[in-house]
Amino acid sequence: RGRDGREVVLPEPQRRYRRDAAAPSRRRAQVGTAPSGVPADPGAAPPSPPGRCQLRSPRRLPPLPLPRRGCSRLPPGSPAAGGRRGAAPVLAALLGLGAVLAYGERRRRGAQAAQATPVPRYPLYTREEVGRHRSPQDRIWVTHGTEVFDVTDFVELHPGGADKVLLAAGGALEPFWALYAVHSQPHVLELLREYKVGELSPEEALPAPDATQDPFAGDPPRHPGLRVNSQKPFNAEPPAELLAERFLTPNELFFTRNHLPVPAVDPGSYRLRVEGPGGQALSLSLSELRSRFPKHEVTATLQCAGNRRAEMSRVRPVKGLAWDIGAISTARWGGVRLRDVLLDAGFGEEREGEWHVCFEGLDADAAGATYGASIPYGRAVSPAADVLLAYEMNGEELPRDHGFPLRVVVPGVVGARSVKWLQRVAVSPAESPSHWQRNDYKGFSPCVDWDTVDYTTAPAIQELPVQSAITHPRPGAAVPEGELTVKGYAWSGGGREVVRVDVSLDGGRTWRVARLTGERPVPGRAWAWALWELQAPVTAGAELEIVCKAVDSSYNVQPDTVAPIWNLRGVLSNAWHRVHVTVSR
Amino acid sequence: RGRDGREVVLPEPQRRYRRDAAAPSRRRAQVGTAPSGVPADPGAAPPSPPGRCQLRSPRRLPPLPLPRRGCSRLPPGSPAAGGRRGAAPVLAALLGLGAVLAYGERRRRGAQAAQATPVPRYPLYTREEVGRHRSPQDRIWVTHGTEVFDVTDFVELHPGGADKVLLAAGGALEPFWALYAVHSQPHVLELLREYKVGELSPEEALPAPDATQDPFAGDPPRHPGLRVNSQKPFNAEPPAELLAERFLTPNELFFTRNHLPVPAVDPGSYRLRVEGPGGQALSLSLSELRSRFPKHEVTATLQCAGNRRAEMSRVRPVKGLAWDIGAISTARWGGVRLRDVLLDAGFGEEREGEWHVCFEGLDADAAGATYGASIPYGRAVSPAADVLLAYEMNGEELPRDHGFPLRVVVPGVVGARSVKWLQRVAVSPAESPSHWQRNDYKGFSPCVDWDTVDYTTAPAIQELPVQSAITHPRPGAAVPEGELTVKGYAWSGGGREVVRVDVSLDGGRTWRVARLTGERPVPGRAWAWALWELQAPVTAGAELEIVCKAVDSSYNVQPDTVAPIWNLRGVLSNAWHRVHVTVSR
Repeated sequence: RGRDGREVVLPEPQRRYRRDAAAPSRRRAQVGTAPSGVPADPGAAPPSPPGRCQLRSPRRLPPLPLPRRGCSRLPPGSPAAGGRRGAAPVLAALLGLGAVLAYGERRRRGAQAAQATPVPRYPLYTREEVGRHRSPQDRIWVTHGTEVFDVTDFVELHPGGADKVLLAAGGALEPFWALYAVHSQPHVLELLREYKVGELSPEEALPAPDATQDPFAGDPPRHPGLRVNSQKPFNAEPPAELLAERFLTPNELFFTRNHLPVPAVDPGSYRLRVEGPGGQALSLSLSELRSRFPKHEVTATLQCAGNRRAEMSRVRPVKGLAWDIGAISTARWGGVRLRDVLLDAGFGEEREGEWHVCFEGLDADAAGATYGASIPYGRAVSPAADVLLAYEMNGEELPRDHGFPLRVVVPGVVGARSVKWLQRVAVSPAESPSHWQRNDYKGFSPCVDWDTVDYTTAPAIQELPVQSAITHPRPGAAVPEGELTVKGYAWSGGGREVVRVDVSLDGGRTWRVARLTGERPVPGRAWAWALWELQAPVTAGAELEIVCKAVDSSYNVQPDTVAPIWNLRGVLSNAWHRVHVTVSR
Repeated sequence: RGRDGREVVLPEPQRRYRRDAAAPSRRRAQVGTAPSGVPADPGAAPPSPPGRCQLRSPRRLPPLPLPRRGCSRLPPGSPAAGGRRGAAPVLAALLGLGAVLAYGERRRRGAQAAQATPVPRYPLYTREEVGRHRSPQDRIWVTHGTEVFDVTDFVELHPGGADKVLLAAGGALEPFWALYAVHSQPHVLELLREYKVGELSPEEALPAPDATQDPFAGDPPRHPGLRVNSQKPFNAEPPAELLAERFLTPNELFFTRNHLPVPAVDPGSYRLRVEGPGGQALSLSLSELRSRFPKHEVTATLQCAGNRRAEMSRVRPVKGLAWDIGAISTARWGGVRLRDVLLDAGFGEEREGEWHVCFEGLDADAAGATYGASIPYGRAVSPAADVLLAYEMNGEELPRDHGFPLRVVVPGVVGARSVKWLQRVAVSPAESPSHWQRNDYKGFSPCVDWDTVDYTTAPAIQELPVQSAITHPRPGAAVPEGELTVKGYAWSGGGREVVRVDVSLDGGRTWRVARLTGERPVPGRAWAWALWELQAPVTAGAELEIVCKAVDSSYNVQPDTVAPIWNLRGVLSNAWHRVHVTVSR
């Protein structure tokens, strides 16, 4: 982040170079060298010459009773096998689970204590060594407690789909199992033990963060399943495989878009300042907010303006985080209506002229400049617009990454206006002076570049255009012949309901209508996405270009291609989503 | 029109055949034969053999002082030469002109009386004969009073552009001159007289309409400049050349979309019935409407759902009138707020559940079934939605074709809901039972055909998607090298402002940003279109594929191509508009 508060993003070629540069060094580190301070695996073979085969060392471990493919598939009626088809009701129950996992050091230490001192019959590995095994070529390892498993041969047998297991590859299973209650049954762990190949080394230690200088040192722990686009500030999206599995995104997987370090707020001393019309101001504690105003709940999808930016960057490089399709998530928000607070502060239903309600967060840069944004006054006071000051997310206290203890939720509007860690509300004849309101989050013509851009010529993004994406299958996948299920999400801004999703398997030449799932929204207040799916027969050997496009209640549609909506900041990327797959036998 | 009230429309190939079949017969009639009952032109040459050259007979008339090209062009400062650049202020003044032209018989008779009995120095022609001369090949004739002029050689010299003169080809100049005040100066008529080639035959008579059986016999006279898509019921659009010349469309040129014959309403006995919540009803005369409720004025664009259907038919035939780009127009509407009338009738600001306000017109088919439509209750009572019961259009009494004496105007919503000749308003838990609400004016996937369509699966069109079109130059035109001006309109539904129009001259590979003209609307209440223009240098010999696409305040955009939004009814045709032209030297 630069001094002016703007993200400092390397141009695309440079970033690509860095990724390329990192990959060989990781590979070099794997060539028999153990991390410093960590004893080498005593059972490991001597360093083998560079090449792909040296990564297959686990094959040289003592033989284990690996189930043969096909014969060990669980019968369709078994609980574990129900993971795919019967997931919806089970998972819905999970949303109230709330028992947030203790990630990292705390969990590791607890697990070690519980494990006592078993006879070390298995080789010992560090977490880093486990982390090298993330693909079928390198073998797929996971941990549970202090045990290490090679689940490469189980992946295709996983009732919930191979892609879901791969999310945990190289790391711990617990954060993922916590999301899917079906795993909390004894036979699942028994099944897993068939794949055990080692134990975590008791001597390994995680590096302690250097908290003295790093403004991000106080950031909260995060779910390892998130796809991280930037660590500092933290920006991450749920993996596409999990994105549309549930109507409500679990809090741990909800996409996170932070512009600055996460503030540490003491809920007891927290006060929201609401500046009234005559110069007087309200100062509201959390308990006052809860007691003085009725609780209001809204199910709303938030989407970052940069969602699907990666596709835009493939046309021409743009500035911004390379979001895939996951900078969008849905939650049930609970809190008070902004309208009620504004009326309580002395404002009226209407105001002559153009007025804006400005929000200021507690998140600040080194110079003290805070994040800010504004929305039009009419939206803020409209009872039909459902704008919230939210203290709950899916029935839990707001997580720190999502604005604890209070955030704005503006349904139907770009996420950037739903200011987190809210500290101040003010009504102004001008938009928020924030950089992010005035000089970012705006759309431009493809002909505008960084030499010619004039931010005063475009309106700040508020309502977003109609959007949809395919979450399953993933690009480049080989899907089995027979009945293919295509799944995804669709959403539109301004409360406009998604009324149809068209899906093509041939690049857009012919179309089918997908089945929309989920509740029917109140007309004009369709704040949440629609999930959709389509079944279609596919034959082996076919190359499919799967395409989806949504239609909203204003009959707006998505544009066919990305290039004509390209813009230098890479926002508003809502062209047809295209996924190329092959059909295998 | 079929018995079920649905339009009976021939499939595209059949309609094309009919047009093709008509053309040769018109040409045959020109080969020296005069219409029966009308004396042949005494000065005409004997019939010439068939072929193109026989159409040039006017060349054989006594030589006239035709100005040579170039030397007779008016100096830039002259009033007539100001027609193109200086048109806006002059034309704006015209909007209040209101002196509606007396078309047809009345005007012709008056002109004949004033003409007395001059010595017939010029050959005499019937109106039908004049009507054959509509193209440079056939020569371009026009009439003014009883005089006939061959303006073929003046067309390119016309300060307002050749395309404007061609609108009057084969007919009377007066209706067009009435729209452009610059013509009401003596020297314009002097200039015209240089091109005189004849007089209208005093014996010719217009055929009297057969009023006994025809339900459309009572329809009002219409402006001859309208492009007629259907005579009965009358459906017509302003020519593209005039469409975006003014921000407010003159009433005479406002697109007309009638589903049934135009009712003849006696304003004195007219009553609007508004059914209240408890079974009681209001019955309001026009004077009660005017006196009991405040007058409210709104500038709003109306667009037919079928605008630009002709482009969709070129992908695959669709059912419906072949509208070009002109089924859209803008007016300043004056009347009372529907909201005020509903509240007066006893309804409240909000209603639990989904309610609809249903409108019923006085226009009825032979079985007495009337036109009807409905809008959601929330829109009807929202002060921000500006829904009107309008009795004025551009400062004049509503014209008969546009709903005299009272019509609904629902800004931001498809024209079909703005019911004309309004007789009844009712609030209902269901949408209007009208055919046009339930079984028409809905959008479907391209994969739905007349065998599979299920009208219950799609919502009735209310808000329309973002739209734009190029009004100048016209498709196939040869434009001069140098600076090309591209002009057009852009609009979006739901009060969403047009924030940008991108124009490409190379089919969409590169883009420029057009200049938007007209007033800046109130945010969220952008009910009227934006007009736009772009100047760009073009070189001789170039082939240009001019494309436009608009962006609205929700950053929705138009789709790239027509085929993926094709639908069996040909509605919602809002792909990029493309115009192919060549650049001449």
